[in-house]
Amino acid sequence: MKNSATIDGGITAAKGFSAAGICAGIKKSGRPDMALVVSDSPAAVAAVFTTNKVQAAPVRLCRKHLSGRTGRAVIINSGNANACTGEQGATDALRMGELTAQLLGVEPSMVYVCSTGTIGVPMPMAKIEAGIHAAVAALAPDGGDRAAKSIMTTDTVDKQIALELTIDNKPVRIGGMAKGAGMIEPNMATMLSVLTTDAAVDGEALQACLANAVKQSFNCISVDGDQSTNDTVLFLANGAAGTDVLSATHPDWPAFCAAVDEVTRHLAISIVKDGEGATKFVTLTVSGAASEADARAVARAVANSLLVKTSWFGEDPNWGRIMDAVGYSGAEVNETLVDVAYDGILAVAKGQSAGMAEQELHSVLAKPQFRIDISLNLGSASHKLYTCDCSHEYVKINSEYTT
Amino acid sequence: MKNSATIDGGITAAKGFSAAGICAGIKKSGRPDMALVVSDSPAAVAAVFTTNKVQAAPVRLCRKHLSGRTGRAVIINSGNANACTGEQGATDALRMGELTAQLLGVEPSMVYVCSTGTIGVPMPMAKIEAGIHAAVAALAPDGGDRAAKSIMTTDTVDKQIALELTIDNKPVRIGGMAKGAGMIEPNMATMLSVLTTDAAVDGEALQACLANAVKQSFNCISVDGDQSTNDTVLFLANGAAGTDVLSATHPDWPAFCAAVDEVTRHLAISIVKDGEGATKFVTLTVSGAASEADARAVARAVANSLLVKTSWFGEDPNWGRIMDAVGYSGAEVNETLVDVAYDGILAVAKGQSAGMAEQELHSVLAKPQFRIDISLNLGSASHKLYTCDCSHEYVKINSEYTT
Repeated sequence: MKNSATIDGGITAAKGFSAAGICAGIKKSGRPDMALVVSDSPAAVAAVFTTNKVQAAPVRLCRKHLSGRTGRAVIINSGNANACTGEQGATDALRMGELTAQLLGVEPSMVYVCSTGTIGVPMPMAKIEAGIHAAVAALAPDGGDRAAKSIMTTDTVDKQIALELTIDNKPVRIGGMAKGAGMIEPNMATMLSVLTTDAAVDGEALQACLANAVKQSFNCISVDGDQSTNDTVLFLANGAAGTDVLSATHPDWPAFCAAVDEVTRHLAISIVKDGEGATKFVTLTVSGAASEADARAVARAVANSLLVKTSWFGEDPNWGRIMDAVGYSGAEVNETLVDVAYDGILAVAKGQSAGMAEQELHSVLAKPQFRIDISLNLGSASHKLYTCDCSHEYVKINSEYTT
Repeated sequence: MKNSATIDGGITAAKGFSAAGICAGIKKSGRPDMALVVSDSPAAVAAVFTTNKVQAAPVRLCRKHLSGRTGRAVIINSGNANACTGEQGATDALRMGELTAQLLGVEPSMVYVCSTGTIGVPMPMAKIEAGIHAAVAALAPDGGDRAAKSIMTTDTVDKQIALELTIDNKPVRIGGMAKGAGMIEPNMATMLSVLTTDAAVDGEALQACLANAVKQSFNCISVDGDQSTNDTVLFLANGAAGTDVLSATHPDWPAFCAAVDEVTRHLAISIVKDGEGATKFVTLTVSGAASEADARAVARAVANSLLVKTSWFGEDPNWGRIMDAVGYSGAEVNETLVDVAYDGILAVAKGQSAGMAEQELHSVLAKPQFRIDISLNLGSASHKLYTCDCSHEYVKINSEYTT
């Protein structure tokens, strides 16, 4: 039996959290572009950041604040990444946090700052500051949905979820929101995500739980192979549900972690399904690899191959392109052992055509979602990756997205 | 003064070579799909092959024949890669070589075999065998142009060149042809190339000369980051020009190697310019890297970034995407030191906007060819890469290319 149930409310489903989503005028479109998430009381905070060596100013600020492992709020703008903006960018990120802290009456180190959008453009600070005032004024216990809509960039749908489960015989809620549609790659993505829970959780345990959840969710998706400068996942646990402080020794810890995994996996899959221009959602599993690194390398080579992705868009069961990517992945590969199946239908057996009629394979590719299983038959390591195709629309979106 | 001059004739510009290009009926389009290159006398042979671990049957056969360092002929078909075709594929590649050898009256080990086209489809051997008969019958001393046209797949133009220079006070010719437009990546590509010269060259020296030439040409191009199963470059030197046997100790050796570099660079650049759907030709130089490997990693990350390539297509000077790719390249990078220039106009200085008007940068991107120079300002290593944009047309070509 599943130990958690989906509920409404997104990041404000958890008790003691309020949120806002407002229009600060950063986006030319006039769409919502600023979100604020606030915990009524100090929350334990965990975070995972991009591994890109070019890092946005707010990412550097968040890393600093994370050393305290506590926080009260997250202020987020979309429309401008505040990346490659030098000293001014650092000053601007600091100012965003400080103004938010001042208006909320909390310490600046308790406020986390995220930005997403165009790289290299100075932050429109007059709009940002007015937006922060408006966001604080708009805070509401049911503001999760508006917050989720305000962090979108090229996303076509908002991404949010909340679960309820029982911990210490008390109802506990875990909510999450995320944004991201392009620049998505196994090692994080142009994505931001904020998770909240009203469980009380030890800070180090929360970090371990989040790191593990990210590994099997946000780090297992690929839209286009580009890693961004701004990727951040923040997790706030405020204890408003009145549980004991959870950590690995608590009997309900596995259930809590499983629910967090479910939240992050849902958000990650939502990102891929909303991949820029995507028409196919593909669950790619590589098994029988000599090592986990090899399994990941093969999955990544196949998922990032433009030739493979465009053949999916064309609904063409061109398994030769998959074999090609397997071969150049860098992993240990013996082509005479490789099997490839589409939704369980064997297309490649021992490195060559399994003799399946092309029409049979084509009918799998014609579906909006399908599985591809690649067995290297060398060892026992495996890796699962969620990815999508590459369409005309992807090129259109990314050639027309102005600086 | 340049020591070589461009001449006509392609691979048959060199004395003692004949070639043919015919329609064997392998391609559904009915376009030419079989080429044959023959040297009147045994030639020294050098070759470079794909590093993909999935290797086509003809590649494995060529590797075997290369141990003798001599050859008389190259038989090539387009339309079918004879890759992922198992034992039957190996038998078919062997048969292609043997039949050609028999009809030419030479040893089978003197015939090299190349295939390019769709992966995983059995070779239509009746058509192939009839085609080999036709190709042998069509051999002509001016057949270079027809051969170059017969190895094309998604290429829109044939790629060939010939140079004449003086060695030992004798005129010597070096010719080359190549095919390739997609699945192009710094470590070779879905490309085939055959080079010929009537200079006499020591086999080992010829191999060293070719390996070096490939390094600065075919290994410095990227269209889409995919490496193929069939990439092969063959170089035949038959000595018909009557020179001494050239090697590194010969006074004219540097001139000979420089001319070979020029031939391979011309062919490599022709491949990028004919990149599937390409509308922009970009010369990307990374300098100031801490190591050559870092310089290559940065160049490759930028050139293979879908977001960068689509922004070029959109003529959008979105240098933020370049900075992003620099950051995730894996190379040692300090973002506050990075400069980026478009055709010499500084867009990024010390990791942030150099303040150049966007219109100024846009006017560079609007050109069909431009330079991008990325300075990491950390060390002294550099790398130059030739690449292109990614357009709607690329997706169209590769989603509609049938298996």
